[in-house]
Amino acid sequence: MADLPKTVDIHEEGPREGFQIEKGPIAAADKVRFIEALAETGLKEVQCVSFVDPRRVPGQADAEQVAAAIRRRPGVRYTGIWLNLRGLERAVKTPLDVAGSLQMSASETFSIRNTNKNTAETLAEQRRALDYYRAHGIPVTSAIVMTAFGCNFEGAIAPERVRDCVGMLLDLAQEYGVSLDTMRLADTVGWANPSAIARTIGAVRERWPDLPVALHLHDTRGAGLANALTGLQLGVAHFDSSCAGLGGCPFAGHKGAAGNICTEDLVFLCEETGIATGIDLDALIDCARLAEAIVGHPLPGKLMHAGSLTRFRQAASGRAA
Amino acid sequence: MADLPKTVDIHEEGPREGFQIEKGPIAAADKVRFIEALAETGLKEVQCVSFVDPRRVPGQADAEQVAAAIRRRPGVRYTGIWLNLRGLERAVKTPLDVAGSLQMSASETFSIRNTNKNTAETLAEQRRALDYYRAHGIPVTSAIVMTAFGCNFEGAIAPERVRDCVGMLLDLAQEYGVSLDTMRLADTVGWANPSAIARTIGAVRERWPDLPVALHLHDTRGAGLANALTGLQLGVAHFDSSCAGLGGCPFAGHKGAAGNICTEDLVFLCEETGIATGIDLDALIDCARLAEAIVGHPLPGKLMHAGSLTRFRQAASGRAA
Repeated sequence: MADLPKTVDIHEEGPREGFQIEKGPIAAADKVRFIEALAETGLKEVQCVSFVDPRRVPGQADAEQVAAAIRRRPGVRYTGIWLNLRGLERAVKTPLDVAGSLQMSASETFSIRNTNKNTAETLAEQRRALDYYRAHGIPVTSAIVMTAFGCNFEGAIAPERVRDCVGMLLDLAQEYGVSLDTMRLADTVGWANPSAIARTIGAVRERWPDLPVALHLHDTRGAGLANALTGLQLGVAHFDSSCAGLGGCPFAGHKGAAGNICTEDLVFLCEETGIATGIDLDALIDCARLAEAIVGHPLPGKLMHAGSLTRFRQAASGRAA
Repeated sequence: MADLPKTVDIHEEGPREGFQIEKGPIAAADKVRFIEALAETGLKEVQCVSFVDPRRVPGQADAEQVAAAIRRRPGVRYTGIWLNLRGLERAVKTPLDVAGSLQMSASETFSIRNTNKNTAETLAEQRRALDYYRAHGIPVTSAIVMTAFGCNFEGAIAPERVRDCVGMLLDLAQEYGVSLDTMRLADTVGWANPSAIARTIGAVRERWPDLPVALHLHDTRGAGLANALTGLQLGVAHFDSSCAGLGGCPFAGHKGAAGNICTEDLVFLCEETGIATGIDLDALIDCARLAEAIVGHPLPGKLMHAGSLTRFRQAASGRAA
């Protein structure tokens, strides 16, 4: 376990990921309550809403209302996402922390099927976005390679292809004088496994040894935390995750498929392994239970149902004293 | 990933673990159907029933009926468990493959609370069991150290204590001329984490480098497959698990807590990492879905809800050809 990082940064995506896939409407006040509770746990970044077409994603129709209502805690970044310029224009009018991200899909077929753009067209679109960010003084801080480990159309993705994608995004960043905090590798469709994680990170590291890699992992097939552990063992110190395991995978064959890895389960794994997260685990479990109460059905997180080890540890050390 | 085993043996415990905790009665015919389907997947050992007091565990009152009805597939072992001599006497009258196991709990407090016996009394009881096995020609093939990573009363368990327990069980086996196939380390109450797994296996290996260690892991707090991965990375090649994640943890603070790690999710992790299990994953997923249909509520396995990668791989390679 030699290369384990001493600390990790966790980017919480539960509010955005989770509430938009729920069938019933979730009150804006509940979303705000959940976001504010998350920000009290020590999380430094919470992805709150998505600025997408409300006709297509009714669960995000109140994005502006939610963004405006959040009582902000100093030191926490409250973010949102958008899929096009129209969404970005909505985002910049809110109090959210708006930052640009470069993105492309390692699977060109996935890109064509989902965005109707091949790799060259995606890069051209990224240039237009970078022009907009520059013109409007919007910082660009990260980049993401989607479907970095496989996709349902192309199957497993070769590490060399991911390395090439990382190269294209880094070239683009350099061209625009942008300094990236992290390069995210995303297991968008739940294809990753520990060997693939190790090979792909290895291929990227070989070329850019000091590039901070972040992992965006899904638990679609149960390997989410084993994949995260592999990342940790390789020194990866940045993860995206979702409180209570909120969210789902629209690309799996089944509507009940799991989405992002669960934040509190990841925090437990890190803290138990001696990696500091800066997060109050019991407060985070309370958030997960709040999320379950809000959506009104069981959510996939494990720790929220079993409870943490805190009280048992306290009782045991009290007994030993 | 240097020490990954080439193959692993998986001991299926779903039928026994799962059906006994269900509230509603499960028909014996359904149990038999599930057991027979599991035996068709390539699994070599299926734990079918528990010979316990039917007043305390009504869900196992039909143990004899189930054991008698199974159409046996050659090469598969069908096993059961018992907690005392009375249960063992019932087991030997059935067609099941009855084999003895030595067992003790690393947490003496857990042992006292659950069996009313301290370590010395547990060892004395093991001797009585060994006398019985010897007198009745029952083979003894394995040993298990329960609560090997922690317990709710004593907290984390020191690796040295586990090593001492392993030593006591090995001494006992030697005293009775018994040759053990495996030494199981069980995370009975869901306390394990990757560092603890590595430290504890390390402590055992230091003393007995060639002892085949098996892991019995629970997914109580979401770290189950990350813990399994750690075992695999240390060359562990024997695991207990439960199809569909059947079962629960009676020692967790919450009734919804997860039990054993999920067999098909473990098989997926192994096969994707290049470790052969000898199991037909898609057939096993069908078993998990059968289990869900039998119990009539969602079960915690992930892969069964997302589907395997088989059809996507076939379609992708068809497209590439």
